[in-house]
Amino acid sequence: MLLAIIDPLIDSALNEDLAGGDLTTEATVPAEITTTARAIAKSPLVACGFTVFERTFHRIDPELRVQALVDDGDYVDADTTIWTVSGSARSILMAERTALNFVQRMSGTATLARTFVDQLPDGTTTRIADTRKTTPLLRYLQRYAVRTGGAHNHRDMLGSAVMIKDNHIAAAGGIEPAIARAKARAPHTCRIEIEVENLSMLEQALSAGADIVMLDNFAPDHVAQAVVMARGKATVEISGNMTPERVRSAAVAGVDVISVGALTHSAPAADISLRFKL
Amino acid sequence: MLLAIIDPLIDSALNEDLAGGDLTTEATVPAEITTTARAIAKSPLVACGFTVFERTFHRIDPELRVQALVDDGDYVDADTTIWTVSGSARSILMAERTALNFVQRMSGTATLARTFVDQLPDGTTTRIADTRKTTPLLRYLQRYAVRTGGAHNHRDMLGSAVMIKDNHIAAAGGIEPAIARAKARAPHTCRIEIEVENLSMLEQALSAGADIVMLDNFAPDHVAQAVVMARGKATVEISGNMTPERVRSAAVAGVDVISVGALTHSAPAADISLRFKL
Amino acid sequence: MLLAIIDPLIDSALNEDLAGGDLTTEATVPAEITTTARAIAKSPLVACGFTVFERTFHRIDPELRVQALVDDGDYVDADTTIWTVSGSARSILMAERTALNFVQRMSGTATLARTFVDQLPDGTTTRIADTRKTTPLLRYLQRYAVRTGGAHNHRDMLGSAVMIKDNHIAAAGGIEPAIARAKARAPHTCRIEIEVENLSMLEQALSAGADIVMLDNFAPDHVAQAVVMARGKATVEISGNMTPERVRSAAVAGVDVISVGALTHSAPAADISLRFKL
Amino acid sequence: MLLAIIDPLIDSALNEDLAGGDLTTEATVPAEITTTARAIAKSPLVACGFTVFERTFHRIDPELRVQALVDDGDYVDADTTIWTVSGSARSILMAERTALNFVQRMSGTATLARTFVDQLPDGTTTRIADTRKTTPLLRYLQRYAVRTGGAHNHRDMLGSAVMIKDNHIAAAGGIEPAIARAKARAPHTCRIEIEVENLSMLEQALSAGADIVMLDNFAPDHVAQAVVMARGKATVEISGNMTPERVRSAAVAGVDVISVGALTHSAPAADISLRFKL
Amino acid sequence: MLLAIIDPLIDSALNEDLAGGDLTTEATVPAEITTTARAIAKSPLVACGFTVFERTFHRIDPELRVQALVDDGDYVDADTTIWTVSGSARSILMAERTALNFVQRMSGTATLARTFVDQLPDGTTTRIADTRKTTPLLRYLQRYAVRTGGAHNHRDMLGSAVMIKDNHIAAAGGIEPAIARAKARAPHTCRIEIEVENLSMLEQALSAGADIVMLDNFAPDHVAQAVVMARGKATVEISGNMTPERVRSAAVAGVDVISVGALTHSAPAADISLRFKL
Amino acid sequence: MLLAIIDPLIDSALNEDLAGGDLTTEATVPAEITTTARAIAKSPLVACGFTVFERTFHRIDPELRVQALVDDGDYVDADTTIWTVSGSARSILMAERTALNFVQRMSGTATLARTFVDQLPDGTTTRIADTRKTTPLLRYLQRYAVRTGGAHNHRDMLGSAVMIKDNHIAAAGGIEPAIARAKARAPHTCRIEIEVENLSMLEQALSAGADIVMLDNFAPDHVAQAVVMARGKATVEISGNMTPERVRSAAVAGVDVISVGALTHSAPAADISLRFKL
Repeated sequence: MLLAIIDPLIDSALNEDLAGGDLTTEATVPAEITTTARAIAKSPLVACGFTVFERTFHRIDPELRVQALVDDGDYVDADTTIWTVSGSARSILMAERTALNFVQRMSGTATLARTFVDQLPDGTTTRIADTRKTTPLLRYLQRYAVRTGGAHNHRDMLGSAVMIKDNHIAAAGGIEPAIARAKARAPHTCRIEIEVENLSMLEQALSAGADIVMLDNFAPDHVAQAVVMARGKATVEISGNMTPERVRSAAVAGVDVISVGALTHSAPAADISLRFKL
Repeated sequence: MLLAIIDPLIDSALNEDLAGGDLTTEATVPAEITTTARAIAKSPLVACGFTVFERTFHRIDPELRVQALVDDGDYVDADTTIWTVSGSARSILMAERTALNFVQRMSGTATLARTFVDQLPDGTTTRIADTRKTTPLLRYLQRYAVRTGGAHNHRDMLGSAVMIKDNHIAAAGGIEPAIARAKARAPHTCRIEIEVENLSMLEQALSAGADIVMLDNFAPDHVAQAVVMARGKATVEISGNMTPERVRSAAVAGVDVISVGALTHSAPAADISLRFKL
Repeated sequence: MLLAIIDPLIDSALNEDLAGGDLTTEATVPAEITTTARAIAKSPLVACGFTVFERTFHRIDPELRVQALVDDGDYVDADTTIWTVSGSARSILMAERTALNFVQRMSGTATLARTFVDQLPDGTTTRIADTRKTTPLLRYLQRYAVRTGGAHNHRDMLGSAVMIKDNHIAAAGGIEPAIARAKARAPHTCRIEIEVENLSMLEQALSAGADIVMLDNFAPDHVAQAVVMARGKATVEISGNMTPERVRSAAVAGVDVISVGALTHSAPAADISLRFKL
Repeated sequence: MLLAIIDPLIDSALNEDLAGGDLTTEATVPAEITTTARAIAKSPLVACGFTVFERTFHRIDPELRVQALVDDGDYVDADTTIWTVSGSARSILMAERTALNFVQRMSGTATLARTFVDQLPDGTTTRIADTRKTTPLLRYLQRYAVRTGGAHNHRDMLGSAVMIKDNHIAAAGGIEPAIARAKARAPHTCRIEIEVENLSMLEQALSAGADIVMLDNFAPDHVAQAVVMARGKATVEISGNMTPERVRSAAVAGVDVISVGALTHSAPAADISLRFKL
Repeated sequence: MLLAIIDPLIDSALNEDLAGGDLTTEATVPAEITTTARAIAKSPLVACGFTVFERTFHRIDPELRVQALVDDGDYVDADTTIWTVSGSARSILMAERTALNFVQRMSGTATLARTFVDQLPDGTTTRIADTRKTTPLLRYLQRYAVRTGGAHNHRDMLGSAVMIKDNHIAAAGGIEPAIARAKARAPHTCRIEIEVENLSMLEQALSAGADIVMLDNFAPDHVAQAVVMARGKATVEISGNMTPERVRSAAVAGVDVISVGALTHSAPAADISLRFKL
Repeated sequence: MLLAIIDPLIDSALNEDLAGGDLTTEATVPAEITTTARAIAKSPLVACGFTVFERTFHRIDPELRVQALVDDGDYVDADTTIWTVSGSARSILMAERTALNFVQRMSGTATLARTFVDQLPDGTTTRIADTRKTTPLLRYLQRYAVRTGGAHNHRDMLGSAVMIKDNHIAAAGGIEPAIARAKARAPHTCRIEIEVENLSMLEQALSAGADIVMLDNFAPDHVAQAVVMARGKATVEISGNMTPERVRSAAVAGVDVISVGALTHSAPAADISLRFKL
């Protein structure tokens, strides 16, 4: 969690909520009151986002003391206190909602990621990965949350790796020229991934030297066959509406990477609240 | 949808995905190819976010032509084409993911809002409202989506209205002084809302002149009683883990406002994809 | 005064003055010289803006020690030292003008606000309020200054409350539909304000359920009549070129809110200078 | 008026007012209504800021047509229509206040500048100049307004020119070393200005080669003497609480530059309003 | 060249030069004068940066007409007109320096890249690549210029690919664990690169499954040996003070990638000037 | 080096490199490892940029300890340790490249400036100056580097001073009216510079009261003649492809200012590396 990256996000979020001050707190809470607040998991979750939590309070009031009782990535039961913040009650009340808005989403994503990872058979090398279907402006935080939940990141952005899809293939005039052009143009540090829809496309992709093949809408038995065909030649990824059962069967079939858009586009917020009594 | 507000969001989101260019498209898609892409609802949803969709494409390429086939707020069946974009295939491919990342979330929130609104009995004046539990940096878009789904907005930020909660009451020394201080300090354009946990607190709040009372964790029969007590004196709001059934019973009981955090913190993304063939 | 809000303002202001360095100070003042400078009120004023003053110096040099000898809101006589800053003479000289540019305006507004508030009869509940006629980009600071001078804030922005004016009435087809639409659309936390030009409009506004009526260009005796009509039904606000005498007579007539655009658009800068001798 | 400089100011100002939308207009004004609004000078003023006016409306709605009936710098009588804007009534209502907040201040400064310039005797070469006592973040607009009113700009920022004041002199060990150091360090494109408090300091400054001498708190007869001493050697500037009478007498005495802080720190807003009827 | 990425750079650069306006042009050039200016290569160069050139003028004045007579990447002789701009002379003069500052650097980098590429033997598959030694804030432009000159980009940022250096090896406890950890953590789209200092390290790297080996300070004959060892197993990169001769010999030896920091940290500006006569 | 100016540059630069984290370091370097790294001049250079170096590390990790062993402006031999940084190895590795990218350029410019300054005869008053041909967005840093190398700055921006070139002269209708207009418009703190191409233009410029004359493409003997003509009347500047020999002869001829675009547009990066062993 790099401050140079998260600080602008935090400041913008605080501005969304506090550009007009906090009418209620300024009116009702005397400036000198201090307290200690506990961030509590109200349902089981993977804790994620302590640095963002801490920093949000510090941007409002650098004097607040913020502490983590668990590590990011720890799975905790309901009613566990995960973090605390002490100091001016006014400052805590003003930052509370913004801090929670961040960490509820981060912990929600980490928790969902963990749920998927837990579907994998013991000892497997298959990994669960995210996609670029991230919440606009929060990609850095979400990718961190995905890793915190035990899953892996896919490419960071369109400039980090090559992923050739149907339209690219059509525009390039076929699988072979598409891969050839990508190899000629992309940094040598990138692997070349290509989406294939059937075994014949897979064969072409492998013979054209694809580093990664993404199986799109493959029937379950074709998946196993694809894994065999690609063995020793390319990494096999599968994607598309992956349910827990489909994750298990894909892992058993030997797929290397299962990418799940829902991790970042549809994870419900984790239930975390701040509890304190003045 | 004001450009001065959404443009910075769009540009930041495009930077997240494109700061290193688009390796694949630049390598495989010749600059002169043009196409028409259709944004398709892959499951039933409330369409939301056309302006953001259009603007995202225009920030990449002002020459693209973007059209809406439905209005924001229209409920559409699966497989409906809702918007189209025509022009340079390169431009469309580069902006595609960012545009979809915005509108899938906006439509997801609008669709969930509509689901809650549909629980209300015919002819009721009860409204479904959002909360401040919004995704950091996207509050403006989410509030728009909530309205698009037929629900209402709650206060925009901490400076727009007064909401007195348990800690404010404790710090102020009671319900009466808390309300008095808020009235003395807040703009005369704000209504004063206070959270109450039982009928005795409700009575105090009403006699202290609260404009809105928020019932927190009230038993269902106490809700009805609260509505009667508040009639003619204050608006009654209820919140907290509202399920469809609880929404219906609260509306029947005569509650004025049902606020639902999930609208903005846990709506799954709507399934929209861009389909075209080069 | 929230750092996440004032820091960007301060940094931009420092850039306006210092993007090319400070030729004079860099040339003439050795880096090792230290001093103590006193911010002095050169005429009577209400002190306002210490946090901005302190923070401006700290953005140039976090080692400077900045102290307040009076509280924001204190009325001080001419030649009173209100704040001090100690440390590197270079740093003080570089930040001096920017710091003063902020606090002279803030104290000017606070002082003017106090002047208006002082016109109110003892024991009145009438309040002086600001308007949205604020200096672009400095609304947050000006609203704070208004409160520091003992006056009140009006709505913060167009999204915080409803204010129906003549054009809105015309567009909506009359007072009644305008108020009805606003009630149906606006957050339940907002009060509905409407501008009326005569007693007949006032009557319509009251019967349509306006929460606040704004009297526009009312003759003095009509003001008193309006107050009687609105009693128990709506808050009464008056605005428009309020002189001290008009303020007094409006307060005596029982008007609740007197809004004064001049507080934020025409307050002369307070005369504060930084005095020190190297 | 450069767009790359004024656009960020305008966008920030629009965000201050519209980050939560415009509740009233969205509720009451149908999207399809169009109108023409006239910006009217309600008292005599120097018109200033058309580009900012136009651009503010265009950032809300590029389809609005905005026209100037007078040029920036024209002096107009009360009740003159100076600019018009036509198109969507909603767009006009949303941008109205922000646009006026800019141009009322710009025209206010231009009008005050003109008032001072008008004090100068016919045919004089004396100029009225502004200072760095500008409103934070609006220096570019204010300097334009000063010129629009017929006055001149002083140095733009601390890096544009040298101005040696008492503390610089003390730190450098005297007038001569202060000027020498400044000449050695500053760009050769800068002139060297120094503030002097009496005739003896003036003499030292002239013999040390100051390009400009700033007379600080000089008695009127000393001013005339100073002008004689400096003739052919240095530009003579005077500053400090310049009233119209003091301006005239300084100009008659032959002072070259009269700098007036009030132009940018205390000009009252010009009275401009937008009038239209839906 | 994506507008959402280059526009903020251009606006910041224009602000650096024009925040105080253009004193000279505003004083001497009447607003109505128009002209056509030609951007001329004063020495042989690879043209690069037309979009930035065009956009810089358009941010000052959208009415200017800007045209390219050559394509980016074209090698032109001295005294070739490469681009033209027509319209308001004032606008052209104001934007001139900023536009040239961009394109002289971009063309300088493209030209230097071409010089290195021209050292490669005909028909080779060896590529010249850039490094992360880019000018802060201009990485996007420089990477484009590198490609324009016929060379290739290395990884875009620290999050795009893995490059294990001596300190990483030491921290991880050896080559094998360093590579293993990187494979376990990095996106499956990344290739794993490792820097090796001798043939023994190379052997370890290859057997640990490195995708790319970077030869650091290898003696020329060891380079050839390394290429043989790595054949079929890993891409071979070489870096470090590459002169034209060393480039040739590395290519002949069969090295795949020659990375050259100088492309982005030490390319002299190309000599381009804008010529016109009012 | 003002933090309010350099911090945004540093943060943007860190974002360029770290928006996706640092895959390698996060994977291979345990969080608890600490180290001390030394910044070493690998060839002789003028050290420049310690504050930027320090601040870059502190924006990543405020706990790092950064120390300068030499002062900015010191000329050091190859293999000299100029600065050190101690603390978390992860933090150091993440910030390393960005910090070096800044200071290699700053030290490169300072070193080149020193090279030119060293051409000046002993005891001369001739100065070497930079130009506005700076790297976009880095002008503040480059101007500092130029001074650090012992050279001088020219005007900071187009609003700081007047420089009349051929097109301005043509537009204004001649040298005399161009100078007259500039004097009438520009702040009295600016000197008026004009570019002349031959002795006849020089004569006109001097008689029109130019403060500085810039000799453009003058034959060497004409330079000497120009100096004589301008003596006591104007500062003489020369520019245009200044080689070391031309610098010496111009200084001997008595030219006051020699401006060298290469200082900021073509200085090669200084060779500085960070050395440490975990």
